[in-house]
Amino acid sequence: MYRSHTCGELRESHIETKVTLSGWVQKTRDKGFVVWVDLRDRYGITQLVFDEDRTSSKLLEQARSLGREFVVQVTGEVIERSSKNPKLPTGNIEVLVDEVIILNESKTPPFTIENETDGGEDLRMKYRYLDIRRNPVKNNLIFRSKVSMEVRKYLSDQDFIEVETPYLIKSTPEGARDFVVPSRMNEGQFYALPQSPQTFKQLLMVGGMDKYFQIVKCFRDEDLRADRQPEFTQIDCEMAFVEQEDILDSFEGLTKHLLKEIKGVEISAFPRITYDDAMRIYGNDKPDIRFGMEFGELNDVAQHKEFGVFNSAELVVGIAVPGAASYTRKELDALVNWVKRPQVGAMGMVYAKYNEDGSFKSTVDKFYDQEDLAKWAEATQAKPGDLICVLSGDANKTRAQLSALRMELAERLGLRNPAEFAPLWVIDFPLLELDEETGNYHAMHHPFTSPKPGQLELLETDPSAVRANAYDLVLNGNEIGGGSIRIHDRGVQSTMFKHLGFTPEEAEAQFGFLMDAFQYGAPPHGGIAFGLDRLVSILGGQETIRDFIAFPKNNSGRDVMIDAPAAIDQEQLRELSLKLDLKE
Amino acid sequence: MYRSHTCGELRESHIETKVTLSGWVQKTRDKGFVVWVDLRDRYGITQLVFDEDRTSSKLLEQARSLGREFVVQVTGEVIERSSKNPKLPTGNIEVLVDEVIILNESKTPPFTIENETDGGEDLRMKYRYLDIRRNPVKNNLIFRSKVSMEVRKYLSDQDFIEVETPYLIKSTPEGARDFVVPSRMNEGQFYALPQSPQTFKQLLMVGGMDKYFQIVKCFRDEDLRADRQPEFTQIDCEMAFVEQEDILDSFEGLTKHLLKEIKGVEISAFPRITYDDAMRIYGNDKPDIRFGMEFGELNDVAQHKEFGVFNSAELVVGIAVPGAASYTRKELDALVNWVKRPQVGAMGMVYAKYNEDGSFKSTVDKFYDQEDLAKWAEATQAKPGDLICVLSGDANKTRAQLSALRMELAERLGLRNPAEFAPLWVIDFPLLELDEETGNYHAMHHPFTSPKPGQLELLETDPSAVRANAYDLVLNGNEIGGGSIRIHDRGVQSTMFKHLGFTPEEAEAQFGFLMDAFQYGAPPHGGIAFGLDRLVSILGGQETIRDFIAFPKNNSGRDVMIDAPAAIDQEQLRELSLKLDLKE
Repeated sequence: MYRSHTCGELRESHIETKVTLSGWVQKTRDKGFVVWVDLRDRYGITQLVFDEDRTSSKLLEQARSLGREFVVQVTGEVIERSSKNPKLPTGNIEVLVDEVIILNESKTPPFTIENETDGGEDLRMKYRYLDIRRNPVKNNLIFRSKVSMEVRKYLSDQDFIEVETPYLIKSTPEGARDFVVPSRMNEGQFYALPQSPQTFKQLLMVGGMDKYFQIVKCFRDEDLRADRQPEFTQIDCEMAFVEQEDILDSFEGLTKHLLKEIKGVEISAFPRITYDDAMRIYGNDKPDIRFGMEFGELNDVAQHKEFGVFNSAELVVGIAVPGAASYTRKELDALVNWVKRPQVGAMGMVYAKYNEDGSFKSTVDKFYDQEDLAKWAEATQAKPGDLICVLSGDANKTRAQLSALRMELAERLGLRNPAEFAPLWVIDFPLLELDEETGNYHAMHHPFTSPKPGQLELLETDPSAVRANAYDLVLNGNEIGGGSIRIHDRGVQSTMFKHLGFTPEEAEAQFGFLMDAFQYGAPPHGGIAFGLDRLVSILGGQETIRDFIAFPKNNSGRDVMIDAPAAIDQEQLRELSLKLDLKE
Repeated sequence: MYRSHTCGELRESHIETKVTLSGWVQKTRDKGFVVWVDLRDRYGITQLVFDEDRTSSKLLEQARSLGREFVVQVTGEVIERSSKNPKLPTGNIEVLVDEVIILNESKTPPFTIENETDGGEDLRMKYRYLDIRRNPVKNNLIFRSKVSMEVRKYLSDQDFIEVETPYLIKSTPEGARDFVVPSRMNEGQFYALPQSPQTFKQLLMVGGMDKYFQIVKCFRDEDLRADRQPEFTQIDCEMAFVEQEDILDSFEGLTKHLLKEIKGVEISAFPRITYDDAMRIYGNDKPDIRFGMEFGELNDVAQHKEFGVFNSAELVVGIAVPGAASYTRKELDALVNWVKRPQVGAMGMVYAKYNEDGSFKSTVDKFYDQEDLAKWAEATQAKPGDLICVLSGDANKTRAQLSALRMELAERLGLRNPAEFAPLWVIDFPLLELDEETGNYHAMHHPFTSPKPGQLELLETDPSAVRANAYDLVLNGNEIGGGSIRIHDRGVQSTMFKHLGFTPEEAEAQFGFLMDAFQYGAPPHGGIAFGLDRLVSILGGQETIRDFIAFPKNNSGRDVMIDAPAAIDQEQLRELSLKLDLKE
């Protein structure tokens, strides 16, 4: 037996107990006559003591020789610590060691195993197994495990059945790009890894499973943006005999449960906003509502003067930045430059200081008098001391730009408090989205989403006006979940495919099995999927999902630790009836 | 709202309640003046009643028109049933319907949705979503979900952390064949799908995670035997600072918990047997110990006479088949033919009846007298009334043949009671296995398994004598779990790779990351993995894992429902820098 206790377990009640501990040498302090060693494992740190009076000189020498991250097993007696450390749960005791066995030595680690490490991202990823020894990463992984377990417990208690759907499925060219898997036994054919278990969970509803969930890996071969991973984890859920209200109710319940169990936060009913309102008020379909700065549309109060920039704009819209009237000229110039960065893309920014004395000072005083600006203040709900920032131009683009500015300013003003949780349902999404480049419509959620009752006919005349039974759950400005009530009628599904540009043959080849299933008594059904990586990172009060994934990939989709992907044998290619066809 | 109650919920206490139910039409019985409809959902069946006295003729007509598997929503009043059905939890009531809404119609299903269906395997797989509506399949999936949940609860309570390891990893040519995934972003390179998270869980131990588990899909591109799936699910576990005894103890605990929670069966300490003893006594490293028929080795008592077949054999070995002395000549001939089938491969079989009167009658009476046969009886622990079956030849082959016979006879004699659970640890496996074809050794468990302490040197002189810290958990004749104490020393791991025929360069290219990790303070560690599909089917008292998988693949690795794998677009191949190279 390697240990009688863990390194996080011993307390004053253990004093005079003989114990055996195993762990890693965190730190050695040598005061000459006494040597202290901090021994670490997953559960904590216990101080070991060796001293001239009570320890043999050979053992003392051995203690001095222990390097950082050596793995040792020690036996000794728990004694009271003369100088206690109230910060450590084990801080009242130490172990007077009488035997040390070195279980494994360690080379000097390439970065320090401390909460704040000196290792850069690349080095940490290459030696991820050492990075995981650090408390922040270790605790994130434990936290993730706890969240997953709470999800499972809650949903199981609500009669949801976890069903494992297959990973080797069929490629569907529409939507994101699939990872494919060549089949050796079926020459020239490929499986695809699922982007989500969407069709399978719908078939489980047709199969009468009634309430399904699964915490499941999904795969998308996309060019990776920061904080996207080629493989990611979903909490995937589906229910039969439900309307939108039933789904919102069920998963508001799950989210409340998590907030309460994991964060101790109780939230009553989640607010709801339509997609149209979210875009109008926040310029964004996943608004962060932990703070205000709601959009004020200024067309009515800014297009009556000679200012051509506003007059020619489709939309003039502003926000009131709390307390920012005191910004210096330099700060304001920097802000203007910020919105003009290519990532944001505004042509410029008009601003007006709403001074504490009630007066206004704007960059467009030539065109607008105090009375005009007072109306701007009213529209943006500005108070004295605020700064009104105004953008204008094409409505969609301007909203997106102002949304970016709103988020940036909130960040700078410390309004995005990670310990505060503000969930929000965004509902009534458009069914279709116009691809401006191709002029084609595609499904905003996915092709299985049902239009609002009675709007099917609108698809013929005004496709972009059709609203869907689709909803997103937004938490602190991040979409953590999204779903819809599905189509369960073969005819409606065919109509949808037609409007998405499928020929009947294509629809049949790709989704024939689903449309067939709809002919054998498919119940009304709907569902939702949560992004677990994102959910966990937000609950953990952090921004990057990578810190909550044990072995993440980098932005080129590489695992730098194991060095994957890699070349494979010619023999493997031959067995798969494949040849490389390299570009260059 | 589609329903106020489920179809399994209503009892006498609900009488006079107005309810809304939704579900599938299981059956319609039309007696002219009264129509009964059985309405089914996941939770049960509720009887609906329509009759001339209390139902409008229009509604009665509608009830008559409902086809099998139509999806309907009904509203009505719960009333007491005049002829109660004690077999149905809802059998005391019925619902007098006043409104029916057809939510979806159904074509006549291709097979009956009953416990015993008229559908063959192929049809059931093509329409798996209908098959899942049947109680046996539905209940298996619910059972699987319950087992998984119990595993997670138990291990979480024991401080195990569930960590998700990556699915896109690196191909390793040794061992079974990998499924590979071409990388678009890394031209000419491939990921592999994991055959198990073996190296990752070991790295988590190096990373200090201490106790890890994961219920995880694994993948093997093998030619499929019956009841093998290209993707399968493992309960994967690893612990640090453990010896074999700690692992056996922990997972005996898990298995006991499952048997108790799931099956209500309490079992005290699991018996243990060495690999060598298992082979000697049962001819098998996964013996079914629900029944006896232990092997009796007969060399000493059968090689002293003139019977050349036995005299030239490496091993003469028999079993006593309880009560089989009464077999007819015809039955006995059939048994001899059974062992001569190519799947078993024996050259013939000698048998001796141990009659109730204490006399013996054998097929080799010419060579062996009553006294000889009494010794056979003693060696095989035969009792009067038993049949002694004896095989001979090459030791390994003969043991395998007799093991097959033992299992077959147990099956025929009804000794393999699916409601009885007999777990067993098989320990002290050989470290290496000789490949008779190539003359090379390969790892019996996997290359990361540690030899027994002090046996490392034996690798040089007598590789097949080296025993490993490896163990299997066997339940009712099936290996449900297996694992080992791992190597955690770089030097030992290098030696292992050398003996497995790796050059240092190959070892470095494939497992350099792991051997590097061993240099930074790797703790002693070990683990186990359970095959969930198999475990669930045995706990469920059934033989085929396919019935416990929602969407299984057939023996050609095809999903016949979605028709995967399938051809992919030329464009997809081009993006992946691949060309088909068909053999034709």
